[in-house]
Amino acid sequence: MSQRKRTSRKGELLVIALGGNAFHRHGEKGTFENQNRQIRNASRHLADLVESGYRVVITHGNGPQIGDTLLRHDAGQKMYGIPPFPMDVCVAETQGALGYMIQLALRSELKRRGLDQVVLSTLTRVLVDTNDEEMRTPKKPIGPFYNHNQIQKVRKEHPDYTFAYDKARGGWRRLVLSPNPMRIGIAEQSAIKLLVDSGCIVIACGGGGIPVIEEKGWHAIGIEAVIDKDLAGERLATLIRADRLVILTDVEAAYVDYGKPSQRKLGLIRASDAERFLKEGQFASGSMGPKVLAGIRFVQNGGKSAVISELTKMMNALGGRSGTTIIPDS
Amino acid sequence: MSQRKRTSRKGELLVIALGGNAFHRHGEKGTFENQNRQIRNASRHLADLVESGYRVVITHGNGPQIGDTLLRHDAGQKMYGIPPFPMDVCVAETQGALGYMIQLALRSELKRRGLDQVVLSTLTRVLVDTNDEEMRTPKKPIGPFYNHNQIQKVRKEHPDYTFAYDKARGGWRRLVLSPNPMRIGIAEQSAIKLLVDSGCIVIACGGGGIPVIEEKGWHAIGIEAVIDKDLAGERLATLIRADRLVILTDVEAAYVDYGKPSQRKLGLIRASDAERFLKEGQFASGSMGPKVLAGIRFVQNGGKSAVISELTKMMNALGGRSGTTIIPDS
Repeated sequence: MSQRKRTSRKGELLVIALGGNAFHRHGEKGTFENQNRQIRNASRHLADLVESGYRVVITHGNGPQIGDTLLRHDAGQKMYGIPPFPMDVCVAETQGALGYMIQLALRSELKRRGLDQVVLSTLTRVLVDTNDEEMRTPKKPIGPFYNHNQIQKVRKEHPDYTFAYDKARGGWRRLVLSPNPMRIGIAEQSAIKLLVDSGCIVIACGGGGIPVIEEKGWHAIGIEAVIDKDLAGERLATLIRADRLVILTDVEAAYVDYGKPSQRKLGLIRASDAERFLKEGQFASGSMGPKVLAGIRFVQNGGKSAVISELTKMMNALGGRSGTTIIPDS
Repeated sequence: MSQRKRTSRKGELLVIALGGNAFHRHGEKGTFENQNRQIRNASRHLADLVESGYRVVITHGNGPQIGDTLLRHDAGQKMYGIPPFPMDVCVAETQGALGYMIQLALRSELKRRGLDQVVLSTLTRVLVDTNDEEMRTPKKPIGPFYNHNQIQKVRKEHPDYTFAYDKARGGWRRLVLSPNPMRIGIAEQSAIKLLVDSGCIVIACGGGGIPVIEEKGWHAIGIEAVIDKDLAGERLATLIRADRLVILTDVEAAYVDYGKPSQRKLGLIRASDAERFLKEGQFASGSMGPKVLAGIRFVQNGGKSAVISELTKMMNALGGRSGTTIIPDS
């Protein structure tokens, strides 16, 4: 691909994982305008990286969006009799909507700066293993919060669903399976690598990827599950041999003894120390926990470092001046 | 990309345009199971082409699916207060859902046969021109059919919408803009070409592509429109320099004097003759019309031939034994 203002293709390769909440802030209406504003804002920070010579692959969560999508399918059936799609197809829809919005915003921002990199969103399937421990019990909360009256009704409609009560937010939520991505788990990895090596900015594994199992070595089937987007991001980063995995979140860094007088921000940390803190339960499951786990896995699989940072401090975090950086033990 | 059973990368390059109706038959419920069965069926025919050594790029319509998607967004708002997305994002959702289903089914079918081509769906934006004649008046019917009572209600809810009565089906439908794709109209064309040249099977421009305009030479904005998938398919085929454009439909070929005693099936036809028939109004607008127009444009822009065929007769049509083949004048 031709480039007007040429930036290095030999720059460090980063996989950047954006949270679904980065586009849809808690308490804010999930309108197109609101989400698009957040995405345009994120695009400016991503374009800064590209302009600085980094090569960039983007992955993103879909927590709030998959909840909205499942409810739209539910409402479409109730009001208009339109058959709802299973969860794997709903994840694909969120890859479509969010992938497009990121592609549109980032490509515009790059063109505005005279940079000519093509941005391409790819529909990405992530293989999971039916023997995975995590395939037994639904543990991952998704979608809306229900109060006592609502949950009675939802339970009747969907007797097969599992729910859990969220104390912090005071409501019930549906739980779904959240299996680990398999080692050689990204079905489209060779095409993604090819695009990246040619200077293209790729958006992949949105929402953790579309979860599929493969029977008989060829027969792929989508399943009702959601893969953690940070763990899928680790697979993506490892398989395309990225230099660094950058996990963005809405706090500045990972902490130990969070909320206690002994609270301490983690700056540079070795994988084995991070692993020890993780085992101690220092990081919230479904939040900082999978981010730290993804970081540990990435450096143990050959990555140079994993960075956990707030979006606006990303450039500082890459320079070691903000965020948490996990490095290999030796 | 490695290939276990090696098929020629030097084979003829085809762009295959599948109708949205190919996945969602009229009168059949648009369930995942029904649509998936149709897609798996189509995948067997597509895999036959790949196994015969053709290189394949796939595009597809989204007529029935975009209708369902818009209704789901409408219902989601009414039942749960979830803000609906604008039409460009809804088109992106259909690219997500259908692109994934084709990718899943075709890759499985290829693997079953021992073929190792990667299949990748890309979110594709198609640029349109605000000065296009077609940007003035909405003419393209989409979505559900409304009876007399329903249309009164819909008109009140959406005073800005335009509707038209469909005599054949006896109902009102919403009309939207259906602009032409611009000449250099596919934003992601260089990435698509790169993938194709590397032996990848690409799915692109689903639903005619996501319609965008570009302001100031960089600021891309999605618009409320649907691009004809055959005309977008022509752009795709021309821009990636495909040898042939193959437009699949549910009739065997194009006809002149359709339904009259003088009815005649068109076999091999030169572009200028096809153009004359088109001007005479021989082909239904919104149906065979844009297919013939796409075929004419493709061969006039350097393509070897354009084939209009029924899915199951595609291989015969490529051999000139079925369907309509449009060739250049000289």
